[in-house]
Amino acid sequence: MTERLDVAVLQRRLADFATARDWEQYHTPKNLAAALSVEASELVEIFQWLTPEESARVMRDPDTAPRVRDEVADVLAYLLQFCEVLGIDALAALAAKIERNESRFPVREVPESR
Amino acid sequence: MTERLDVAVLQRRLADFATARDWEQYHTPKNLAAALSVEASELVEIFQWLTPEESARVMRDPDTAPRVRDEVADVLAYLLQFCEVLGIDALAALAAKIERNESRFPVREVPESR
Amino acid sequence: MTERLDVAVLQRRLADFATARDWEQYHTPKNLAAALSVEASELVEIFQWLTPEESARVMRDPDTAPRVRDEVADVLAYLLQFCEVLGIDALAALAAKIERNESRFPVREVPESR
Amino acid sequence: MTERLDVAVLQRRLADFATARDWEQYHTPKNLAAALSVEASELVEIFQWLTPEESARVMRDPDTAPRVRDEVADVLAYLLQFCEVLGIDALAALAAKIERNESRFPVREVPESR
Repeated sequence: MTERLDVAVLQRRLADFATARDWEQYHTPKNLAAALSVEASELVEIFQWLTPEESARVMRDPDTAPRVRDEVADVLAYLLQFCEVLGIDALAALAAKIERNESRFPVREVPESR
Repeated sequence: MTERLDVAVLQRRLADFATARDWEQYHTPKNLAAALSVEASELVEIFQWLTPEESARVMRDPDTAPRVRDEVADVLAYLLQFCEVLGIDALAALAAKIERNESRFPVREVPESR
Repeated sequence: MTERLDVAVLQRRLADFATARDWEQYHTPKNLAAALSVEASELVEIFQWLTPEESARVMRDPDTAPRVRDEVADVLAYLLQFCEVLGIDALAALAAKIERNESRFPVREVPESR
Repeated sequence: MTERLDVAVLQRRLADFATARDWEQYHTPKNLAAALSVEASELVEIFQWLTPEESARVMRDPDTAPRVRDEVADVLAYLLQFCEVLGIDALAALAAKIERNESRFPVREVPESR
């Protein structure tokens, strides 16, 4: 794969993939939001019985690591497809949010827990 | 904001943001996966009582559009923070998944529903 | 099964089941809430690509009907286990909520959409 | 409230509540499954940054305890409304599941972790 890893390129490939398979009919924003939340829950499922410490070591397990990567890919895929059908620029939305959060949660001189 | 909108740059800003506020202690993979799924559900909540047709028009509503963008930003923020703590390259994971799906779901001559 | 179908009885059987298998160590409220949300998402997954009309007919499909019943059972099981470890009376909580909602959403003379 | 706390009675009150407000039009199985998962996530949200130990103490906090009970009520309300529209007996489904799990996960002589 020589194509550069760029969000816009991946979003386009996902859109072409759906069009080629005539799946656009299923891709209402409502359905894609549901699918996104289902994939996020599949990620949670991997961690649900682990201690915080065990959860930090999941990538050392050769069976679990690819499952985690796979669920990350599924979440990102549905997020980008959702953004595609609604014309949302996910990176711009995140950049704007970070700006707002930097004002909303100023860094304290002596950091405290939230 | 003159900084280029790039996933790696945004992921770094999120990591610096958490470090500056001493929030890393909360950012176990288990907690971040849960937070991601909570944000994905907040996106679902916007659509839960809408018809498929209404769901396609949410960005025309001046009250709803910024909420949708905001939830997209939250989902992406937690996904990137999750990837940061586990050393996962989200775009590479998605590119690999698209490759696999292109083999797994070949385009039919006459497209049919899945 | 001659035992009467009663929430308190089922909650007790679930608690005994966990104790007998030494699973209580995993049953923190945090983990049980996560497991509950994972099961709720498995229910959503069954419906995610269906139209509203198709979703109303799922119990007529002999493959889907037992899956739906099974996910309902999983959601209820984790909800009751969650209530067990925190000493919450789920039915009393629901009755109190219904009372509050009856005040909060009075019936209009001419019913309108919310 | 003198009415006995019984699942069937509460399920009936919820159904009457929806009918009186003309909300049945929104209560497709698909929408109710989504609403159930949204409420389950609101329960997760309460716990998302807590340690396992903190999560075990939530009911001692006078601000958090009623929020937890309220989310339990919301989850149960949508579960029963989902069962109502599809004609599912939630308690029978759970009883059948417990029977199956008792065969599937036999108690070991010396209990071990799963």
